Amino acid sequence: MRIQAEFSLIPLTGDPHLAKDIALCEKVLREHNLEVELHAMGTNIEGEWDTLMSALKACHEAVHQTGRNRLYTVIKIVSNVAGEKPFAAKVESVQHQLDALQGK
Amino acid sequence: MRIQAEFSLIPLTGDPHLAKDIALCEKVLREHNLEVELHAMGTNIEGEWDTLMSALKACHEAVHQTGRNRLYTVIKIVSNVAGEKPFAAKVESVQHQLDALQGK
Amino acid sequence: MRIQAEFSLIPLTGDPHLAKDIALCEKVLREHNLEVELHAMGTNIEGEWDTLMSALKACHEAVHQTGRNRLYTVIKIVSNVAGEKPFAAKVESVQHQLDALQGK
Amino acid sequence: MRIQAEFSLIPLTGDPHLAKDIALCEKVLREHNLEVELHAMGTNIEGEWDTLMSALKACHEAVHQTGRNRLYTVIKIVSNVAGEKPFAAKVESVQHQLDALQGK
Repeated sequence: MRIQAEFSLIPLTGDPHLAKDIALCEKVLREHNLEVELHAMGTNIEGEWDTLMSALKACHEAVHQTGRNRLYTVIKIVSNVAGEKPFAAKVESVQHQLDALQGK
Repeated sequence: MRIQAEFSLIPLTGDPHLAKDIALCEKVLREHNLEVELHAMGTNIEGEWDTLMSALKACHEAVHQTGRNRLYTVIKIVSNVAGEKPFAAKVESVQHQLDALQGK
Repeated sequence: MRIQAEFSLIPLTGDPHLAKDIALCEKVLREHNLEVELHAMGTNIEGEWDTLMSALKACHEAVHQTGRNRLYTVIKIVSNVAGEKPFAAKVESVQHQLDALQGK
Repeated sequence: MRIQAEFSLIPLTGDPHLAKDIALCEKVLREHNLEVELHAMGTNIEGEWDTLMSALKACHEAVHQTGRNRLYTVIKIVSNVAGEKPFAAKVESVQHQLDALQGK
């Protein structure tokens, strides 16, 4: 079961600078067999359910190990048995419709 | 790694009545070793990461098998190495503070 | 435009005990003309878009004023021009289907 | 109160192709005074609370007017009285830390 997901992990305690934690999590995600796209409010990931969820678990464990005791995570998932368009094609498709609406 | 989560699964295609799909998912969740609390906008679940994620996967598979091809899911997770208060204690704790604020 | 929403507000800095902040937010929500249901992972609210969003803004302002500088919020919204079933009826409807699935 | 948000709006009924609806919503967002960044799983937006929420409301109204009766929306918000780094700086900051972790 291949899924597309958007994911944010936020430590709730300690140092208010989160870039190091998010980078650690990105590193873990990239070590798995996943399509990964970092953006300013989270990360888009695509892959098999099991691989993706293992990667997210490893990500939580890695951040906990740095001393962050409490993490808050939001995951949005699209699961489509017929397959979804790749991430880039989704953005292009919306951009194409937007250009049409704006008369470009 | 024990976690608390809030979860909503929404089929994006077919019959607009979703109660049957949500009930099917609840049934699957209850067959796993999880604390489960249904509410009007989703379901709160607590348990081990692996059990909880297996349950959510089984839930997606069950709903897909009824012919719902495309599902949209939102999961919020609290992961706390020091342990979280149980669900009921969390609500009591807020209610207690709310009573104090309201001078009750 | 009447909507149903599920809402969690989490301070990212300071005291790790959040019950007081959540209670303050509940108090603010209850001072508006809204259906409010607290649960263990958030709050369900129903009302007019403008009232609901004003209440959420007031809630952020109140928590910021206690010295919490940085807040993380997740809102899920169902907007239905045909009207949604009330919260209690939604839960009953799923429970009814679940009983049927479990042969009760 | 300036906020950063991540936002997805999904019609739950009718045509399963959503690009046109998302484009309509993007068009509405861009007509307001907001920083807008479309990505594959949603849209990042930054601006004043009132402007941003008016834009999101206008977006829901525009999509409803095309005949989409039922919409499901997820909004994640960061509200920081001390101000957040701009979107691009956030991504750069994580990328910088990621390069360091990967020994680049």
